[in-house]
Amino acid sequence: MTGSIRFDSSSTIPIYRQLHRQLRGMIVSGMMPAGQRLPATRELAQDLGVNRATVSSAYALLEEEGLIHGHVGRGSFVSAPPHSTDYKRLPVMGEVAEGGARAGSPLALPPSGRAAVVAQSASEISFATSRPLAGLFPIEEFRDCCHEVLGDEVAHTVLQLGSPLGYAPLRQYLMEDAAENGIGRANDDILVTNGCQQAIDLLARAMLRAGDTVVVEEPIYPGLKAALLQAGARLVGVPVGEFGVDAADFARALERDSPRFALLTPNFQNPTGATIPLEARHALLATARAHGVLLVENDLYGELRYRGEALPTLKALDDSGETVLLGSFSKVAFPGLRVGWMIAPQPLVRRLAEIKQATDLHTDQLSQAVLLRFAESGRLARHLARARQAGLAQLEAALDGCLRELPDGSSFTQPDGGLNLWVRLPAPLDADVLLSRAQMRGVSYLAARYFAVGRPDAQAFRLSFGGLTPDEIRRGLRVLGQVFHEELERTSLTGAAAMVTALV
Amino acid sequence: MTGSIRFDSSSTIPIYRQLHRQLRGMIVSGMMPAGQRLPATRELAQDLGVNRATVSSAYALLEEEGLIHGHVGRGSFVSAPPHSTDYKRLPVMGEVAEGGARAGSPLALPPSGRAAVVAQSASEISFATSRPLAGLFPIEEFRDCCHEVLGDEVAHTVLQLGSPLGYAPLRQYLMEDAAENGIGRANDDILVTNGCQQAIDLLARAMLRAGDTVVVEEPIYPGLKAALLQAGARLVGVPVGEFGVDAADFARALERDSPRFALLTPNFQNPTGATIPLEARHALLATARAHGVLLVENDLYGELRYRGEALPTLKALDDSGETVLLGSFSKVAFPGLRVGWMIAPQPLVRRLAEIKQATDLHTDQLSQAVLLRFAESGRLARHLARARQAGLAQLEAALDGCLRELPDGSSFTQPDGGLNLWVRLPAPLDADVLLSRAQMRGVSYLAARYFAVGRPDAQAFRLSFGGLTPDEIRRGLRVLGQVFHEELERTSLTGAAAMVTALV
Repeated sequence: MTGSIRFDSSSTIPIYRQLHRQLRGMIVSGMMPAGQRLPATRELAQDLGVNRATVSSAYALLEEEGLIHGHVGRGSFVSAPPHSTDYKRLPVMGEVAEGGARAGSPLALPPSGRAAVVAQSASEISFATSRPLAGLFPIEEFRDCCHEVLGDEVAHTVLQLGSPLGYAPLRQYLMEDAAENGIGRANDDILVTNGCQQAIDLLARAMLRAGDTVVVEEPIYPGLKAALLQAGARLVGVPVGEFGVDAADFARALERDSPRFALLTPNFQNPTGATIPLEARHALLATARAHGVLLVENDLYGELRYRGEALPTLKALDDSGETVLLGSFSKVAFPGLRVGWMIAPQPLVRRLAEIKQATDLHTDQLSQAVLLRFAESGRLARHLARARQAGLAQLEAALDGCLRELPDGSSFTQPDGGLNLWVRLPAPLDADVLLSRAQMRGVSYLAARYFAVGRPDAQAFRLSFGGLTPDEIRRGLRVLGQVFHEELERTSLTGAAAMVTALV
Repeated sequence: MTGSIRFDSSSTIPIYRQLHRQLRGMIVSGMMPAGQRLPATRELAQDLGVNRATVSSAYALLEEEGLIHGHVGRGSFVSAPPHSTDYKRLPVMGEVAEGGARAGSPLALPPSGRAAVVAQSASEISFATSRPLAGLFPIEEFRDCCHEVLGDEVAHTVLQLGSPLGYAPLRQYLMEDAAENGIGRANDDILVTNGCQQAIDLLARAMLRAGDTVVVEEPIYPGLKAALLQAGARLVGVPVGEFGVDAADFARALERDSPRFALLTPNFQNPTGATIPLEARHALLATARAHGVLLVENDLYGELRYRGEALPTLKALDDSGETVLLGSFSKVAFPGLRVGWMIAPQPLVRRLAEIKQATDLHTDQLSQAVLLRFAESGRLARHLARARQAGLAQLEAALDGCLRELPDGSSFTQPDGGLNLWVRLPAPLDADVLLSRAQMRGVSYLAARYFAVGRPDAQAFRLSFGGLTPDEIRRGLRVLGQVFHEELERTSLTGAAAMVTALV
C-alpha cells in the first residue's frame, strides 16, 4: 500500500507534508479503507528511508484532520467517513483561537471526524487565529541560542530542577528590563509563568471564590474567559470601543459590581485591536484606586506597535505599585514556548508561586534559558524590529482591504499594532451564518460569539491578520467582500420579493 | 569594589561560581555592606569581559542564599545580616524536595535571609533532594537533539501554537511505546502534562470537590500532598512497608472511606523506595475494582530499576482499562524540562485537556520535541543504561553505608532502584532534631514530617542518594553515623545521670 509513496526531493514542500498529502489521497480515495491499520511510524520510516519524526508529523496532521485515529496499545487506524451532518461543524474547525484555544465553547477541543479535513483543505486563508507569522521565526538564531545555552557552564543548572518563581537569571533580566522601562516598584517581584494564560489561572485560583465578580472587557479573548469561569467567577463585561474601555463605563461597573479585580488589555486588545489613550489610562487607574479594586493589566501585545508613539503601561503610571502586569514572549517571539511573567507586589507573587509549585513545580527551564539568551543577546530586539516592519505591512493590507472590500455600512477598528482587528457588518448580515459560506471559498474568521461575555453581536467578527502575508490578507478580504456583497444582494432581493408578496 | 574580581581560567570551577564566591566573600566580610547596590548585570558583565548570563547566574546564587535581594525597578542590593534566631531555620534550608518542592510546609518557598547561606555552605552533602545526578546529563547529546529538531522541517510547527493534548508526534511515539509494553487499552488516550505534578493537579481539579477523600500512601511525596490538599481533598494514608502498600490495609481504607480515587506508586516509591510485589499488585487491582475506585498509578521511577526483574505496571495488569498511568521524562532524563504524560481512558483525557487548555494552553513544545528526538533516536535508551549502571553503584553505596554506619536498632528499606530509601533510627533518636546537628557537619536529609499524611514518625527520614556520587554517599553516611552514635551516647549518659539523680 505504502509502497507507492514517492518523494520529490526538488520540491519546496517539506517531506512530511508530501507524505501527508499522499496518505490523505489514499484515504480520501478509498485506497486505504476505514478501519485499516497504518504501519507503525518506526516501520514506515525505515521502509521509506526517512526520519521517524517525519512520519509522526504526517500522521499527526492526518489525525488532526480526523482522517485517522490512534488507539493506545493498538496503533493508528483509518477513520470512518463523517456523516453529512458533520458539516454543521464547519464554522468551528481549523480555527485555533489565540494561544491554541480552539473555538466553539471556549473550552472545546478540536472536533475529530472527517468534516475537519474538508474545511481545513478548503480554508486556505485563515483570519481565525491570533498568532504571529511563522515564516518570520528566526529559526537559525533560535538554534544558535539553544547551542549557546547548552554549551554554557550553566547547562547543568538549566536541566536540573528549578524554582517555582522562575529561572533566576531570566527573572534578573526581566527585573532590570522593567526598571529601564520605569515599570517596577520597590515592593514588586517577578513570577515566571507558562504564558499569560497560567498567570490568569493562578490569579483566579488565589483570589476568587465561586460567585466572585471580575470586571473584564467585552468582547474578551476566550482563553481569559475560560480561566476565570473555571474558577467560578461571575464576569461583568465593560464594552470596548475604538479607544478601548471607557472610563465612565468602567467606573459604573466597579461601583455596581464590587469586583475582586478588573482585567484590562490597554494595548491592541484581543479581539478588537483597540488601544486605550493616555488620559483614559490615568482615569481608569484613578477609578480603580478610588474603589480599591486591583487592576490586572494584560500587556501581551504592547511590543507589537507598528506605528505611532508607545504609551506607558498602567503599571508604569500607577504610583501605588499595586497594579499587576502580565507579559509574555509568546506573541513577540515563539508561541510554542510557554514563557510569560507577572510583575506584582511581592506578597502576591509569593502566594502565587506557592500555588504554582503545587500545580506544576516550575516553568520549563530550557525555554526560559533559551528565551533569555535570545533577549539578552540582542536577537529579540532585532527580531522585533523585523516583526514590526512586517506587521506594519500586514496591518496596512488589512485596513486597506477592509476599506476596499467590505460593504457600505461596515465599520472596523483601526489599530496601530497587534494581530487583530474587529469588523462589524451592516444589518442584516450575520457574521456567524456567513462564515460557513466564506469557508466554502477557503476563508475563515471567528464570529463575535466566541468573544462575548453577555449577548454576542451577531454582526461582528474578529479578523486576525498576524499569521498571514499581506498578499493573503488582500486575497482573503476580497473573498470575504464577495461573500458579504452577494448576501446583501440576496437579502435585498428576498426582501423585495417578500415585500411584493406582502403587497399582493 | 568589583575591580578586585579575578578569574582563574585554568580552574575547573565555572566562571559564574568563581564570581559568586568572590562576591559572597565581599558581602560576608562586610566589604560590601548591607544596603549597597550591586552593579547591573549588563554593566558588570562588560567590566569583567564575561557573558551577561554568567553575572546573572552568580547574582541568582547570591539571591538564593539570601545575601542579596532584588527590587524590580531599582536593582539588586546587599541584604541585612540575619538575626541569630534564623538558625532555627537550618533544618529546612537548601533542601529541595522532589521536583523542587521546598521542604517545610509542603508549599513553603525557600527561606530568604542570611541563615540560608551559612547552612548551604556547610551542607556539602545533601541527601535531601530526590533527583538524578547532574553529572550524568548527556549535555552534548541533548544539544545535538535541539540542533536536529530545529534543523528539521517541523521546526516552525514546534515554535508555533500547539494542542492542549500535547505535541502530536510525541503522543504518537508514547502511544506506540505503550503498545510495545502492553500498557494501553483500546479506549485509552494520551495527554502530555507539565510533569507528573500537573497530571495530579488536573486530576484533582477534574475529580475532586472540597471534602472528597483520596487514598494515598503514608508517607507520601509532598508535591502530591500539596496538589491534592489545594483541591480541598481529605487524605487517607495507607502505610507503606518494605513491600509498599499492603493489600488488606488498602481494602480496609477503600471500604471505610469510599475515596474518589486512590493514588499508588508501585515502583520505588518516593520517599520510601518500596516496590509492590506482583501478587500484591493483582490484589490491589482486584480490590479497587471490587470497590469501584479509580486507581491512579504514579510510575515516575519505574525505568530506574538497577537490579532484579521489572514488574508489570498496574495499568498493564488492568484488563478493565480504567487505571490511569502517569509517566515522565523528568526523573529519567532532565528534571528542568517539564514533560510528563498520562495514559487514561479517552473521555477522562479529553476532560483534562479542556481544563489544561484553560490553565496554560499546552505544554512547552520545544521540550516536547527535543525529548521526543532524544527518545526516538535511541539516545534516551543509552542514557538510561548509563544511569542504571551509575544508579546501582549509588544504591550499593547507600545500602552498604547504612549497614556500616547506622546505629544498632536502625532499619532501612532495601530498594532495587529509584533515588531514595527510608531510614528509621532506634529510640530515642529524633531524626528531625538531629538534622540540625548533621547540617553543622555538612550533611542534610529530609525528616519524616515532610512526608506525613497523619502523625509523622519522628525516628524516620528520607535518604535521597540519586544526586550524589558513591563516594559522597559513603562520606555522608559516615558523618550521619557519627552524629547518631554521639547522640545515643549522650542520651544514655544523660539517662544514667538522670537515673542516678532519681535514686538519690
